[in-house]
Amino acid sequence: MTTKAKAKKSTNTIRTGILGASGYTGAELIRLLLHHPSVDIRVMTADRSAGKPIDAVFPHLGGRGLPNLVSLDDARYDDIDLVYCCLPHGTTQEVVAKLPKHLKVIDLSADFRLFDLGDYETWYGHAHRAPALQAGAVYGLTELAREAVRRARLVANPGCYPTSALLPLVPLLEAGQVDTDTIIVDSKSGVSGAGRAAKEASLFAEVSEGIHAYGVAWHRHMPEIEQELARAAGRKLTINFTPHLMPMNRGILSTIYVRTAKGADANALRKTLAARFADEAFVRVVPEGVAPATRHVRGSNHCLIGVFQDRLPGRAIIVSVIDNLVKGASGQAIQNMNVVYGLPETTGLEQEALFP
Amino acid sequence: MTTKAKAKKSTNTIRTGILGASGYTGAELIRLLLHHPSVDIRVMTADRSAGKPIDAVFPHLGGRGLPNLVSLDDARYDDIDLVYCCLPHGTTQEVVAKLPKHLKVIDLSADFRLFDLGDYETWYGHAHRAPALQAGAVYGLTELAREAVRRARLVANPGCYPTSALLPLVPLLEAGQVDTDTIIVDSKSGVSGAGRAAKEASLFAEVSEGIHAYGVAWHRHMPEIEQELARAAGRKLTINFTPHLMPMNRGILSTIYVRTAKGADANALRKTLAARFADEAFVRVVPEGVAPATRHVRGSNHCLIGVFQDRLPGRAIIVSVIDNLVKGASGQAIQNMNVVYGLPETTGLEQEALFP
Amino acid sequence: MTTKAKAKKSTNTIRTGILGASGYTGAELIRLLLHHPSVDIRVMTADRSAGKPIDAVFPHLGGRGLPNLVSLDDARYDDIDLVYCCLPHGTTQEVVAKLPKHLKVIDLSADFRLFDLGDYETWYGHAHRAPALQAGAVYGLTELAREAVRRARLVANPGCYPTSALLPLVPLLEAGQVDTDTIIVDSKSGVSGAGRAAKEASLFAEVSEGIHAYGVAWHRHMPEIEQELARAAGRKLTINFTPHLMPMNRGILSTIYVRTAKGADANALRKTLAARFADEAFVRVVPEGVAPATRHVRGSNHCLIGVFQDRLPGRAIIVSVIDNLVKGASGQAIQNMNVVYGLPETTGLEQEALFP
Amino acid sequence: MTTKAKAKKSTNTIRTGILGASGYTGAELIRLLLHHPSVDIRVMTADRSAGKPIDAVFPHLGGRGLPNLVSLDDARYDDIDLVYCCLPHGTTQEVVAKLPKHLKVIDLSADFRLFDLGDYETWYGHAHRAPALQAGAVYGLTELAREAVRRARLVANPGCYPTSALLPLVPLLEAGQVDTDTIIVDSKSGVSGAGRAAKEASLFAEVSEGIHAYGVAWHRHMPEIEQELARAAGRKLTINFTPHLMPMNRGILSTIYVRTAKGADANALRKTLAARFADEAFVRVVPEGVAPATRHVRGSNHCLIGVFQDRLPGRAIIVSVIDNLVKGASGQAIQNMNVVYGLPETTGLEQEALFP
Repeated sequence: MTTKAKAKKSTNTIRTGILGASGYTGAELIRLLLHHPSVDIRVMTADRSAGKPIDAVFPHLGGRGLPNLVSLDDARYDDIDLVYCCLPHGTTQEVVAKLPKHLKVIDLSADFRLFDLGDYETWYGHAHRAPALQAGAVYGLTELAREAVRRARLVANPGCYPTSALLPLVPLLEAGQVDTDTIIVDSKSGVSGAGRAAKEASLFAEVSEGIHAYGVAWHRHMPEIEQELARAAGRKLTINFTPHLMPMNRGILSTIYVRTAKGADANALRKTLAARFADEAFVRVVPEGVAPATRHVRGSNHCLIGVFQDRLPGRAIIVSVIDNLVKGASGQAIQNMNVVYGLPETTGLEQEALFP
Repeated sequence: MTTKAKAKKSTNTIRTGILGASGYTGAELIRLLLHHPSVDIRVMTADRSAGKPIDAVFPHLGGRGLPNLVSLDDARYDDIDLVYCCLPHGTTQEVVAKLPKHLKVIDLSADFRLFDLGDYETWYGHAHRAPALQAGAVYGLTELAREAVRRARLVANPGCYPTSALLPLVPLLEAGQVDTDTIIVDSKSGVSGAGRAAKEASLFAEVSEGIHAYGVAWHRHMPEIEQELARAAGRKLTINFTPHLMPMNRGILSTIYVRTAKGADANALRKTLAARFADEAFVRVVPEGVAPATRHVRGSNHCLIGVFQDRLPGRAIIVSVIDNLVKGASGQAIQNMNVVYGLPETTGLEQEALFP
Repeated sequence: MTTKAKAKKSTNTIRTGILGASGYTGAELIRLLLHHPSVDIRVMTADRSAGKPIDAVFPHLGGRGLPNLVSLDDARYDDIDLVYCCLPHGTTQEVVAKLPKHLKVIDLSADFRLFDLGDYETWYGHAHRAPALQAGAVYGLTELAREAVRRARLVANPGCYPTSALLPLVPLLEAGQVDTDTIIVDSKSGVSGAGRAAKEASLFAEVSEGIHAYGVAWHRHMPEIEQELARAAGRKLTINFTPHLMPMNRGILSTIYVRTAKGADANALRKTLAARFADEAFVRVVPEGVAPATRHVRGSNHCLIGVFQDRLPGRAIIVSVIDNLVKGASGQAIQNMNVVYGLPETTGLEQEALFP
Repeated sequence: MTTKAKAKKSTNTIRTGILGASGYTGAELIRLLLHHPSVDIRVMTADRSAGKPIDAVFPHLGGRGLPNLVSLDDARYDDIDLVYCCLPHGTTQEVVAKLPKHLKVIDLSADFRLFDLGDYETWYGHAHRAPALQAGAVYGLTELAREAVRRARLVANPGCYPTSALLPLVPLLEAGQVDTDTIIVDSKSGVSGAGRAAKEASLFAEVSEGIHAYGVAWHRHMPEIEQELARAAGRKLTINFTPHLMPMNRGILSTIYVRTAKGADANALRKTLAARFADEAFVRVVPEGVAPATRHVRGSNHCLIGVFQDRLPGRAIIVSVIDNLVKGASGQAIQNMNVVYGLPETTGLEQEALFP
């Protein structure tokens, strides 16, 4: 069952570690990196499964010649070039602070995403523990921060909800086509976004056959979205962000309600986005009348965006879809690594969506 | 397996027919009416299954002493008091026009819901074929139209989406607490709302593991919602209504974004709704901070409503949930029948939600 | 939202307690008992939620006038007639041993189901802690043990898998129509059977979109099935029992492969079962060619059984379906209570299946 | 969004057509072939969508430079080397009979799988219409028929259920380790196996939240399995095959119950299978005690096989899992193409399973 991935590796291999490999974003990194022609996975940590082979936690990833899991304390980085951090929010900052300086770091937690340390404290309940590192981090929404990512040592990989909201909204705010004070983001997410921790709220019988909103008016992805929108708008702003949990494994669909600026209608917005993403491999603006579905991006690194004229005068509706584990997490992390190392951005990310 | 439902029937039995008994709303009527102490199901039509027993189309309803299915043309109404119409949109109006005048009619199609015949033509593509009947119909959102329903011969049973939107919005518009020009209704529906017709778009493999918006800015439930909101507001109005299809059998969750009137905040809205529905058996306003879930109303006739303060100043978020086949269709139809016949409104509708 | 269930209670109320009310079988008992005309729920325990109202753990059960949850230690039984035990396996026996003797007990755990104490020790890893109570317990598969249940103080309510296997097999073994040495039971179960405990293996993302076998050749329901089959056959026997976990909330389907005795074919088996269950309210043998589906019993206390001639000569295939939380747990527990108190067995259990 | 797949194509391109590209196996072929380095898709037929681009039927496959769909009658084969036939059973044989002789054909229908024309007539209700072609066809279960496939012009690609049953059973029958007269195959399948045709039985609301058996003792995959097992055993045989439909998109799990030959136990069977598949890229025998899950092969071309000792003396339980659309259809079809053209068998099929 070995797919001889190693045989394909080029001489310029990026020697990689995955800290926190036993969760869903870790598994997704492994799935994709196994077929990345320039990557070799040399270290994988998982404290509770230290000493075990990867198939002890992910049977489908056995037989690929991966190293055994080790505890975080036992990880060695001498021959590692880059680590992906898939550790819990709050503990990541201290781990990253102790990593050797020669390592590039792509962090999939929320620990380095808020640049205003006061905001961090407000939303996470404690002072940031690595403020110097924070100052040097880059918010890695690749399509919108490519040049900064290229020079970064520490990339704060965006959250899944923010990715789905920012890709359409940032270009529109930069173009001044959307009112900044009335943005409403109604998001629907699959369950893998809640992680692999054993929680009653994520049990099959609690989640299937139903939907509910959660974190209404108070979700930690809110300040992250607002920070990046403010950067685009050139001023502070507040949005409505209302996430919903629904019974699917993967996928986020955000329905975004905006008031358009004078002179701008849905067609104008669609043109702006189409122009902005014309040369992008992973972002596609769908034609008028087409409604993107999460099924169209399942397992792939793509983001699809549709724009609709509202019947309410002066308003438009934007729908964006991503796979939360790929473009919303591990796929974008690899895309960022490709940028850092000057590789074609699609390397290792060419897979089509899995449908049905 | 007979549950001897008939033995329980009182002497004042309502002799009932179900036109179009082989679809999901038909099945739901049967499920509930079998245990209604004052109802006897005497006629059930299903053209393609005429002559067959009900278990030919719904095995779980066999063995209850129900009459065989007949074609619509063969249905006899001499000893029938009331019929439920579960026929397709567009054909219902002609069927109802030909029914004997002694029959009470509760129509679950959309045919008699729009009172402006021009609106009907706009949204359904042809002139209404029973305008006189339309003029005498009553829009049967029970809690908001009880007195009119009591005197009605023809009840236009509300659509599922409109029920979820109107229950919270009508009282708020009547109270003048919500701006009428910026209402956004983002709805998420289970698949049974699409009916039992064999359509590619409703196949398991097309629907599971994903979500998409449909009918964006052009869904036939939109004018129905606007009509009733206009009645409450005392003026014409336009809303945003964006439905989404998601992988669950039953349930609608509507997330409603409103601008509050001067002096009104989420607490004020919650109070208005709590007061309005205080004596209602089926509508419950949940406490501050509680997020209603469709799982909490699955299989029951309840509607739960939550109100949240938005972080956007001067705005609130309302979440309402119903089971689309019960309060959104067959349950409300029975509730309306109870009103018509002066029975306690909860009769036959006492079942708790099925969770998990 | 109160349905005024209490108003319907007769004067001969059974005053009831539910020990372990915060799990799925507890919730199911409450759902059904709220509309049982002779039952009043007076005590509900849940140690981790002691002091809270029931809607803190089950929002859909709020507003019905139920007592607050208490810890097991704080439960008082002076005015209680009967308790349902929904506590974990292993701890139940000690709890029951300490209960006042005036209480009737219906235990939904596995603690009192194995009458051979050696078997118990083998499968549960420790000596039984209430052997005297065990000796007086009755295995309460209602249709097969009605007289014993009537006289019981302690009813060991059968497991969900055993219920689905025993209902068809016991009558066939008693009739000598099935070979005792080659019985294969291939069962498929929904996830609620795993309980509400937060376990990685029960997470939505681990369970949806897939199926796997578990406990192959070593599942604790196996000795329970064998014990009751042995009683029917009049001799010790061993079976194959292979459970599978699949993505649905409720339901067990058992496909049972048997070698028929000389002279017996599928028709003969079907006749035996049809005759045996002819007067039963909850067990129905479906006609030749009909395949029972778990959807046909979802939320109801029914068991459907189909019998098919195998193409392998001298063999037959039996398919049985139940809802694991109703006939496989709480529904059968109420049925047993009805027997104990001489009530009609269907009391409180008349609900039809919820489909779709 | 184009991934410029064409740029990667080698000079020895296999020019390919897909007949019946608008169904699920068609979509799956496209998904995989887009990244096959030696394949160029030049013709795709879909009668009802003739003239349309592929995104009209599969939005997620748009933007890859694929040709528009054409009707079967309009397809031209001058510059085509090989066609995949994804047409309905019964019509395929006439289509293939008319194809130019220079074409290699891999047929995913059941039309060329039964070599006994009498069997074909029995199970499909009409005489075979291309008996000469049938005589020259090769049953393409790759691992078991590699040499024959290499020389074939027409490959009959195996059915999904047969693939899951034959991979473990054929080697065991060849080794004489399994009794031939008592084989029981209990299979559980996802819904995509029923195809994309709009049928009531495949609707989300009919399939989700439940399971049922179908085609009990009479399913068309039965003679296909028996034919290949007979070939392995060297004698005619009859099996039990009982398929079940369950709510997942992809996946088949077959639980196979066998009587072991004298001297053979589960360990011996496992060893036989492990040895037989030791050099295979796509078939893996899992260690003792591990239960394969369909999630472990979702989207991949793998088959996992586990063997368990039964508690019934002299019996074993075998569990095999595949993705019905990959190893059970399109993936195996590509694997067969690779064999025909002498390419490494894993070419284009390296993807890992998608979990969760």
